Amino acid sequence: MTNNGLNDLKRRLREFAEARDWEQFHSPKNLSMALSAEVAEILEHFQWLTEEQSKNLPKDKLAEVETELADTLIYLVRLADKLDIDLLKAAESKIEVNEQKYPVDKAKGNAKKYTELDK
Amino acid sequence: MTNNGLNDLKRRLREFAEARDWEQFHSPKNLSMALSAEVAEILEHFQWLTEEQSKNLPKDKLAEVETELADTLIYLVRLADKLDIDLLKAAESKIEVNEQKYPVDKAKGNAKKYTELDK
Amino acid sequence: MTNNGLNDLKRRLREFAEARDWEQFHSPKNLSMALSAEVAEILEHFQWLTEEQSKNLPKDKLAEVETELADTLIYLVRLADKLDIDLLKAAESKIEVNEQKYPVDKAKGNAKKYTELDK
Amino acid sequence: MTNNGLNDLKRRLREFAEARDWEQFHSPKNLSMALSAEVAEILEHFQWLTEEQSKNLPKDKLAEVETELADTLIYLVRLADKLDIDLLKAAESKIEVNEQKYPVDKAKGNAKKYTELDK
Repeated sequence: MTNNGLNDLKRRLREFAEARDWEQFHSPKNLSMALSAEVAEILEHFQWLTEEQSKNLPKDKLAEVETELADTLIYLVRLADKLDIDLLKAAESKIEVNEQKYPVDKAKGNAKKYTELDK
Repeated sequence: MTNNGLNDLKRRLREFAEARDWEQFHSPKNLSMALSAEVAEILEHFQWLTEEQSKNLPKDKLAEVETELADTLIYLVRLADKLDIDLLKAAESKIEVNEQKYPVDKAKGNAKKYTELDK
Repeated sequence: MTNNGLNDLKRRLREFAEARDWEQFHSPKNLSMALSAEVAEILEHFQWLTEEQSKNLPKDKLAEVETELADTLIYLVRLADKLDIDLLKAAESKIEVNEQKYPVDKAKGNAKKYTELDK
Repeated sequence: MTNNGLNDLKRRLREFAEARDWEQFHSPKNLSMALSAEVAEILEHFQWLTEEQSKNLPKDKLAEVETELADTLIYLVRLADKLDIDLLKAAESKIEVNEQKYPVDKAKGNAKKYTELDK
């Protein structure tokens, strides 16, 4: 991982898990479940809101959502660490792929999946 | 957001969405759904594997999982951006909370949720 | 399980799994992951649609969503079978609980979670 | 929907929503989110358990999982109702498709996705 804040986070989470002898629970399989459960808690905050409401959360709601985002990042970084994946580098590569997949002139204002784009 | 790689990623994703006029689709509600759908693709890779197998993915599988992790980070960063949340700062605060919730001597070797921990 | 179509479905899925020697993969843990991955495929169909659009799917989209709902029911019935849970009975009990939790006069037109309802 | 318990459940849930004026919240988009959030609560129960442990839940845990399965069925039936999909019929059609996709002699003891099956 290149020099960045995610790197520090990764190390801190590793120490946290080791100190508690939790590495035994942190298989990629289990971490993918925990990650999924956390993301669902974000979803739960938004499920009955309109899109407009989701853009204008009251302060206390926003603080709760912030905590769920934090948990999501934490499990994502843990999972990447166990699989020895460099998250930032992977995201950058994916953006390059997306730039090919969704050229501006075809994708503009259009949420269709790239396979459905008019070629 | 403090100076870090996530910050660059955030800006790049913002430009990507703006160039394609996709901001209209990127309400927090919609992004939480997209995030959830991406995480489920990670889950799908692991669902029939044992925990041991999930630790030893063949190279081609690992490359696929890496792409799903990238997509997950991408939507997580987009969502945080739309909600004006600093992901790294939020994760750091959450770790401090977790250190209180799961003191080493109580939590050691124990995956029980903190509310179930013997106090 | 009382006499109903879900009962036939349960038996048919059991035979399907046994014939393929798939019972070994169908632990409740694994089935919960498969169930979650299927539901996410429903989510994926709706993520960029407005609520209005989600009510008026074109025919081919609807057919795809129908298949995802089918997969979801299949894994749900399998999971309930492995845990020896009577799905219909459980749902009926839950509705009774919900009728207490969300009395008509308090809940009318209000999507707040019951714990947040004005008491 | 053919004559079965799911049919009664569908009607009861429809009355429940109408009495509370909740139909306005029950777009397919929103219901897919609620369904997903419920399934994640099942996942959460299993995330740190081994597969063996997931087969042998203590009674109180099992009762909690039963409630989550009930919630999942409830939202699934609601969603199918709003889309005018006959769940049982859809599941039966899907099983027939699966019987073609996974012939016993190829699929026996093998969790590979059908597209990866040796042809």
